[in-house]
Amino acid sequence: MTTTHTHTRPHRRSLWPAPEGDAVLVIDQRLLPHQLVVERLASVAAVRTAITDMCVRGAPLIGAAAAYGMALQCRLAADDASLRATQAWLDSARPTAVNLAWATQRVLQALLPLPVAARPVAAWQLAAALADEDVATNAAIGQHGLVLLQALAARHPGRPLNLLTHCNAGALATVDWGTALAPVYAAQAVGLAVHVWVDETRPRNQGASLTAWELGQQGVAHTVVADNTGGHLMQHGQVDVVIVGADRVTARGDVCNKIGTYLKALAAHDNGVPFYVALPLSTLDRTVHDGVAQIPIEHRSPREVTHITGRNAQGGLTEVQLVPDGSPALNPAFDVTPARLVTGLITERGVIAATASALAATA
Amino acid sequence: MTTTHTHTRPHRRSLWPAPEGDAVLVIDQRLLPHQLVVERLASVAAVRTAITDMCVRGAPLIGAAAAYGMALQCRLAADDASLRATQAWLDSARPTAVNLAWATQRVLQALLPLPVAARPVAAWQLAAALADEDVATNAAIGQHGLVLLQALAARHPGRPLNLLTHCNAGALATVDWGTALAPVYAAQAVGLAVHVWVDETRPRNQGASLTAWELGQQGVAHTVVADNTGGHLMQHGQVDVVIVGADRVTARGDVCNKIGTYLKALAAHDNGVPFYVALPLSTLDRTVHDGVAQIPIEHRSPREVTHITGRNAQGGLTEVQLVPDGSPALNPAFDVTPARLVTGLITERGVIAATASALAATA
Repeated sequence: MTTTHTHTRPHRRSLWPAPEGDAVLVIDQRLLPHQLVVERLASVAAVRTAITDMCVRGAPLIGAAAAYGMALQCRLAADDASLRATQAWLDSARPTAVNLAWATQRVLQALLPLPVAARPVAAWQLAAALADEDVATNAAIGQHGLVLLQALAARHPGRPLNLLTHCNAGALATVDWGTALAPVYAAQAVGLAVHVWVDETRPRNQGASLTAWELGQQGVAHTVVADNTGGHLMQHGQVDVVIVGADRVTARGDVCNKIGTYLKALAAHDNGVPFYVALPLSTLDRTVHDGVAQIPIEHRSPREVTHITGRNAQGGLTEVQLVPDGSPALNPAFDVTPARLVTGLITERGVIAATASALAATA
Repeated sequence: MTTTHTHTRPHRRSLWPAPEGDAVLVIDQRLLPHQLVVERLASVAAVRTAITDMCVRGAPLIGAAAAYGMALQCRLAADDASLRATQAWLDSARPTAVNLAWATQRVLQALLPLPVAARPVAAWQLAAALADEDVATNAAIGQHGLVLLQALAARHPGRPLNLLTHCNAGALATVDWGTALAPVYAAQAVGLAVHVWVDETRPRNQGASLTAWELGQQGVAHTVVADNTGGHLMQHGQVDVVIVGADRVTARGDVCNKIGTYLKALAAHDNGVPFYVALPLSTLDRTVHDGVAQIPIEHRSPREVTHITGRNAQGGLTEVQLVPDGSPALNPAFDVTPARLVTGLITERGVIAATASALAATA
């Protein structure tokens, strides 16, 4: 994994093939908003490490990166057994999001019928096609979400619409546009004023570091708040709509997303604020019904809770300890919002109710 | 304000009079858990600054400190007008907690009937008495809460009781024992095993820095979690009871407490977990009914959200920036939990329903 520093604005996409065709390039999301560093991933091992270390994160983006990982490994060993072994190894990188396994499975299914010699070129083209498809999917999510935002804005003329989001389900979490933020960018494109409340999203602060950064880059009005704040804002009429992304949605509409999403869904429900989840249908796991009981929740290092890295007064990065020596921490990365709290699912095929029957109709 | 560094364990109380009788001593709570520094407050101005800067925080402790502030100023000017001016100036230090105004009002009412010459000595004795009274009140809260914990523990034999708390309503928030943590210490004293989930409590991290520290000092089992985590823990049966403190409780039982408390109350309600609020009756504001509509919520500096201070690798303290340049932040310090979400109020007079009639009966 080699590193390129750049001082220009980022490539519009979060992931793109190297011009030489020998690697995939990604923004290192661990260093934002303080440093913009592009990583060159030239092997499946580099791709997997980028996923486990959260250099690359966001369910759709992980899927696209994994497809490129399959394609890179395919050049070294493209027989059936090798492809299956690579798939299994990539799938085990992170347990909660399903887009990862969805993408590797699509690559595998497309390659197995082909002669082994044809697989490397086909795999590379397929990875590029999956990335392009993600962009198109998110653009469609944006247009369907825009209709919702326009309807909500009509109820509050003369002021910006206030949208709250949690974690980062923006352009950085996908190849482009994002899921939860796609409607925001669609609104910006048509001149609909939207202000975004950005949950900082402890412990990894993807809201404060990634969502605030990309909204700032795009010139979208936003305000960062502690994760504790959303309920208070809703009690005081300062949130018109909540839109979040998802790492996995079950067949009955339970939503697994970044830890803390469930608390905002409860607050939205208690205050009559619509709570939407934006996702590509590749995030749907039709094999699982009860999200709380059935979805495996990744536990990450307690150090993500006990320590934090930020920019020091000299402009460098410093890690500081927040918790006393000897105090343990627990760090589950996701929670599950029951379908009963979800107003609707914004997908590339339109807004769908979070119910088993509505979701079955998309099969 | 002079500073004393100490390497011994802290005085058991969070506030105590200087042996010379010319100042009140407090632990600087901004530096915990990394440094234990005792501040000497020798004037009303020093007391007020300690309150506004949150060197001293926690509703009951602020009340005790303010009483000493009145007593210190009384030595310089003890006439009626001066006392009233001092009271008003202290009361304006922080707007949300009522214990501050309750304490200054008690001092004023006790002093006004006395000859001016007798007021300085009486004021000092009264401040000491108020501090002692806080300790006794919290000990009583602990005993009433212990009965609840023992009943809950009987349902879960063979394992520690899991209690979740938010912010710091422990010994550090009071003169001693704490409110929400008093039942935990009472349980420890009788050998009842309790494990505490400690919400880190962004943005000022009073949970991670103060509650974890004092529980560690007392040898109470605990685990720090991000504020986003409590709902997930409750969904999985890992929380048996929530106990928090309060900055103001209205006549009908609405609870104003540290921002984010409302979200935990919603999660407790959704999962059938009992949600208790521990408070001295001095935290009750009988003049206010609708907490959401009527309680003024302090907004603190956005810098508390955008920056954080922790211990660096060299053992010193470093402040780091978490949010991109140009991204604004909002920092309301409290929210209001409606009475309908409160299982009961643990007071020095016993456990009381969070209803207008039950609270009226305490008058």
